[in-house]
Amino acid sequence: MSESAVAEANASLDATFGRDAFSTTTPSRARDGDGDGDGDEGLTHVDPVTGAASMVNVGAKPSTSRTATASARVTLGRAAYEAVKRNGLKKGDVLATARLAGIMGAKKTHDLIPLCHHVALDGVTIDLRTVDDDAAVEVFATASCAGKTGVEMEALTAAAVSGLTIYDMCKAVSKDIVIDRVRLESKIGGKSGEWRRSSSGGVE
Amino acid sequence: MSESAVAEANASLDATFGRDAFSTTTPSRARDGDGDGDGDEGLTHVDPVTGAASMVNVGAKPSTSRTATASARVTLGRAAYEAVKRNGLKKGDVLATARLAGIMGAKKTHDLIPLCHHVALDGVTIDLRTVDDDAAVEVFATASCAGKTGVEMEALTAAAVSGLTIYDMCKAVSKDIVIDRVRLESKIGGKSGEWRRSSSGGVE
Amino acid sequence: MSESAVAEANASLDATFGRDAFSTTTPSRARDGDGDGDGDEGLTHVDPVTGAASMVNVGAKPSTSRTATASARVTLGRAAYEAVKRNGLKKGDVLATARLAGIMGAKKTHDLIPLCHHVALDGVTIDLRTVDDDAAVEVFATASCAGKTGVEMEALTAAAVSGLTIYDMCKAVSKDIVIDRVRLESKIGGKSGEWRRSSSGGVE
Amino acid sequence: MSESAVAEANASLDATFGRDAFSTTTPSRARDGDGDGDGDEGLTHVDPVTGAASMVNVGAKPSTSRTATASARVTLGRAAYEAVKRNGLKKGDVLATARLAGIMGAKKTHDLIPLCHHVALDGVTIDLRTVDDDAAVEVFATASCAGKTGVEMEALTAAAVSGLTIYDMCKAVSKDIVIDRVRLESKIGGKSGEWRRSSSGGVE
Amino acid sequence: MSESAVAEANASLDATFGRDAFSTTTPSRARDGDGDGDGDEGLTHVDPVTGAASMVNVGAKPSTSRTATASARVTLGRAAYEAVKRNGLKKGDVLATARLAGIMGAKKTHDLIPLCHHVALDGVTIDLRTVDDDAAVEVFATASCAGKTGVEMEALTAAAVSGLTIYDMCKAVSKDIVIDRVRLESKIGGKSGEWRRSSSGGVE
Amino acid sequence: MSESAVAEANASLDATFGRDAFSTTTPSRARDGDGDGDGDEGLTHVDPVTGAASMVNVGAKPSTSRTATASARVTLGRAAYEAVKRNGLKKGDVLATARLAGIMGAKKTHDLIPLCHHVALDGVTIDLRTVDDDAAVEVFATASCAGKTGVEMEALTAAAVSGLTIYDMCKAVSKDIVIDRVRLESKIGGKSGEWRRSSSGGVE
Repeated sequence: MSESAVAEANASLDATFGRDAFSTTTPSRARDGDGDGDGDEGLTHVDPVTGAASMVNVGAKPSTSRTATASARVTLGRAAYEAVKRNGLKKGDVLATARLAGIMGAKKTHDLIPLCHHVALDGVTIDLRTVDDDAAVEVFATASCAGKTGVEMEALTAAAVSGLTIYDMCKAVSKDIVIDRVRLESKIGGKSGEWRRSSSGGVE
Repeated sequence: MSESAVAEANASLDATFGRDAFSTTTPSRARDGDGDGDGDEGLTHVDPVTGAASMVNVGAKPSTSRTATASARVTLGRAAYEAVKRNGLKKGDVLATARLAGIMGAKKTHDLIPLCHHVALDGVTIDLRTVDDDAAVEVFATASCAGKTGVEMEALTAAAVSGLTIYDMCKAVSKDIVIDRVRLESKIGGKSGEWRRSSSGGVE
Repeated sequence: MSESAVAEANASLDATFGRDAFSTTTPSRARDGDGDGDGDEGLTHVDPVTGAASMVNVGAKPSTSRTATASARVTLGRAAYEAVKRNGLKKGDVLATARLAGIMGAKKTHDLIPLCHHVALDGVTIDLRTVDDDAAVEVFATASCAGKTGVEMEALTAAAVSGLTIYDMCKAVSKDIVIDRVRLESKIGGKSGEWRRSSSGGVE
Repeated sequence: MSESAVAEANASLDATFGRDAFSTTTPSRARDGDGDGDGDEGLTHVDPVTGAASMVNVGAKPSTSRTATASARVTLGRAAYEAVKRNGLKKGDVLATARLAGIMGAKKTHDLIPLCHHVALDGVTIDLRTVDDDAAVEVFATASCAGKTGVEMEALTAAAVSGLTIYDMCKAVSKDIVIDRVRLESKIGGKSGEWRRSSSGGVE
Repeated sequence: MSESAVAEANASLDATFGRDAFSTTTPSRARDGDGDGDGDEGLTHVDPVTGAASMVNVGAKPSTSRTATASARVTLGRAAYEAVKRNGLKKGDVLATARLAGIMGAKKTHDLIPLCHHVALDGVTIDLRTVDDDAAVEVFATASCAGKTGVEMEALTAAAVSGLTIYDMCKAVSKDIVIDRVRLESKIGGKSGEWRRSSSGGVE
Repeated sequence: MSESAVAEANASLDATFGRDAFSTTTPSRARDGDGDGDGDEGLTHVDPVTGAASMVNVGAKPSTSRTATASARVTLGRAAYEAVKRNGLKKGDVLATARLAGIMGAKKTHDLIPLCHHVALDGVTIDLRTVDDDAAVEVFATASCAGKTGVEMEALTAAAVSGLTIYDMCKAVSKDIVIDRVRLESKIGGKSGEWRRSSSGGVE
């Protein structure tokens, strides 16, 4: 990606957060933030001059309705996959456990991701889909809130924790379980409006 | 995978945990656990008859030294990747934040993964490697303990949380960051001895 | 209770939450929710078709002032009861500990009860009353907030945790301590208005 | 209960914990602990002279295998009870959620009950039984560990949190749900050996 | 300080919180709160009559923008101080770890300080300054929110936890590290307006 | 302090922890750790070459009995101090709250201090002493365990959190409360044996 593309990304960030949203750890010192390429352009969680981490100040942002959906894919291998399916057939708890772990994980996001704000979630749903051909379980996690920050990280954390929970319950059967494609699927609300991953899996 | 392979996996599990390790939620009722294919063979966290979840009782297992390494790969895209690298050049906190998030995440594993035991970790290290060609950061998390249960989940949780933290700090630059290959790399100690992923990425 | 009473309860629920508040874990699939008796009528935390758990989406509900009071009764037996009273006479910490445990427990409700929303509590009070005749301590916990969901669970959790804490401090004296009557006493605010338990202990 | 019975309870406590186990908050001051009736006899979590709370020092106690079972009873009323049963018929998550909440609650006991030690649990099981005649769900929680302290509080906390979770999922149907009989059922291990509640519900 | 000064402090408190903000643990009982000197004048977290602790009810207070800065000073001794500086020279993580610990500590304030409300923080910054002459690190923590309560405790907790983290990383070098001057530096917003510590360190 | 003093401190550290205890974040790479002055000598929580943070691996250390006492001093000012004393006279909860906050804070140390190991504490006591002449409260916190790591941080965290809790309850009376002298008082057990602060406050 060219320097101009980076500058463009930064411009878009400035439009979204405003220069003042960058939190400096040395409040009394002037910051250049001149976008000349020697700052941490685009990294909203670090001071552009010192590189020090901080929680972005979102005090000036309006509170709006926001929703994000993220996904993850747990490839189990045949033996573990069949065991999960059998458990499901007799009303077993495997998928229920993964669902709850995802929901509870979403509520812990601010405690896991150091620079995340605490968000009062309006709702969380976890949708688990078994994919026979790949011996995989797909996790779709949706989080929503009315607040000043997006809920991507809540959705992503929910998807990852749900996937790790499936891993945990199956790990006695196989050591070759892999969690892949932990990614954002869609995002609604906030200044950047609506965004959806294209059907081919790329970004539109 | 054939039924016989499943049976074999179960036999291996029985050898590892013993039948008694399967925790029943109805202690007064007999369990068949006959391995005839209608139970949740292989899923050590659910009752083989009812399918109900429980924390496996590890009381009869000896306490041994154990180590596990897990990895994850965060593909950032060029703009976010360059921003992370620039932050690193000036002693910025981005990678330090991801390292600490992974270490602290490992300590929270039992709180995130519903059926995980609490493990008193002896140590946790997070190794972050930047991969220029792919604009990616690879996370290697190693956890160790002296205990009755393995620490795969601690290593995997550390890797996933560290990866999610990198995602969080870069998400303002790109919506197309993906976390892939969250998987076990090696495991030492416990009854199953030593296991390492083959260099080709497969399981030996 | 007759089927018609169940239907009535469901109708009341629909009026309160609206059909849309039921969170489905399979967003793209149609749900019947026809109230014909084969759904989980009344259970707002599970999908009416699949039965899967989720956090109810409260995004569309208005934020109002809410208060709930719950109680619990800890029957200690004479020896433990007298010890608690003696501790109180000399400014001991037993009841103070139970009070604080209740207050702190209320703040942890969303972390304990899987499908509870996080609520920013405006205040919590714990009132402990010693009942000489029964050698019991009664706990009254009141929680209040301005939010989209009620605070019954916060009040109930506070009462239960406060009661468990009294149990803990007295358990060396007796193994026959019992916590009873963990129940809602009153609830103010939200769409359902005000509700109070009748003086006879029943529901009006 | 007479003074002599209190003295007897204290003697039993001394035998169990030893005088040294009483933790004083004023280490340099002598404590009488003479059992003359003016101390907090029997309350092992408070200083016998000042009444101040502290975590009992268990450093001198041996580590032994311990198990405790506790129960709770959630009387739902007919409408809520039927909804729970219907959810169970179609593999719904209601009981699975209550089971997991109990297991996870057991792991949080030290964080909820101020003077509880952290215990590394070997296993936790939650057994839920529906009682048609009473429209109630009975919770049986069993916790086990190898450690210096008993696990009654872990079992009791698991039972209470599981019961509160059932309450939460049913509260939209009825405001008159009651959690009763949160109590110890049995206790194995530690210096006091084995104890079981008599079949009539009393203490043997 | 004279009784009249105490009365004045109380009057100021009443003006700020109102009598109703004092939370009684016995809601049905009248409280005198007559300020005649026999109550806990000024202590907003305890009942003025019984002295029992509770979370102040802030339900009637308006939500306003608030910021607080607190500081702490960690005197390390020469050997530890030099090690910290050397680590900083090569982009080491010591100060980054202290910064993150402070930020994450601020988010846990309500979980650490029993009577603190949960506050949804808008932002947190930690500024660390090395003081060569004293072989000390000064921590400045700033927290901000839009809410009903101030964020002094969040800023103070952040400063203290950041200081403790520096202590932890240096404690192998010296046992004589001291954390001093944990104090409020400034406070903006809320009914009491703006307050700043005078440059001489005293209160203006 | 001279380079030789630093080298001496490092030698003492090596004797205590051994070179192997230094956790590298790049397991496959050789580390020099030659003590030539360009490493982070003495900082056991960072890699001596890269400066990256990690949890020290204590797997090779023996488990021994350990105790540490730390203190803190909260100077309240006259008005707040008198209010705390009055609350104490009528069996109020202020000091009980501070005691419990300290005990519970000790149990959270590993969650607050990023590189601290989780320690299963055997006991915690908090001793609060009012100092009339200075209008101050002194906190003495003692923590003990049988484990591989010391419990200084647990004692220090307990003292600091207890002090912050006193601050919180008094902050409405004064903005000029200061917490000072958060420091270690004594340390028993582990390879370094016993250490006590001299009566003059210095280090012997």
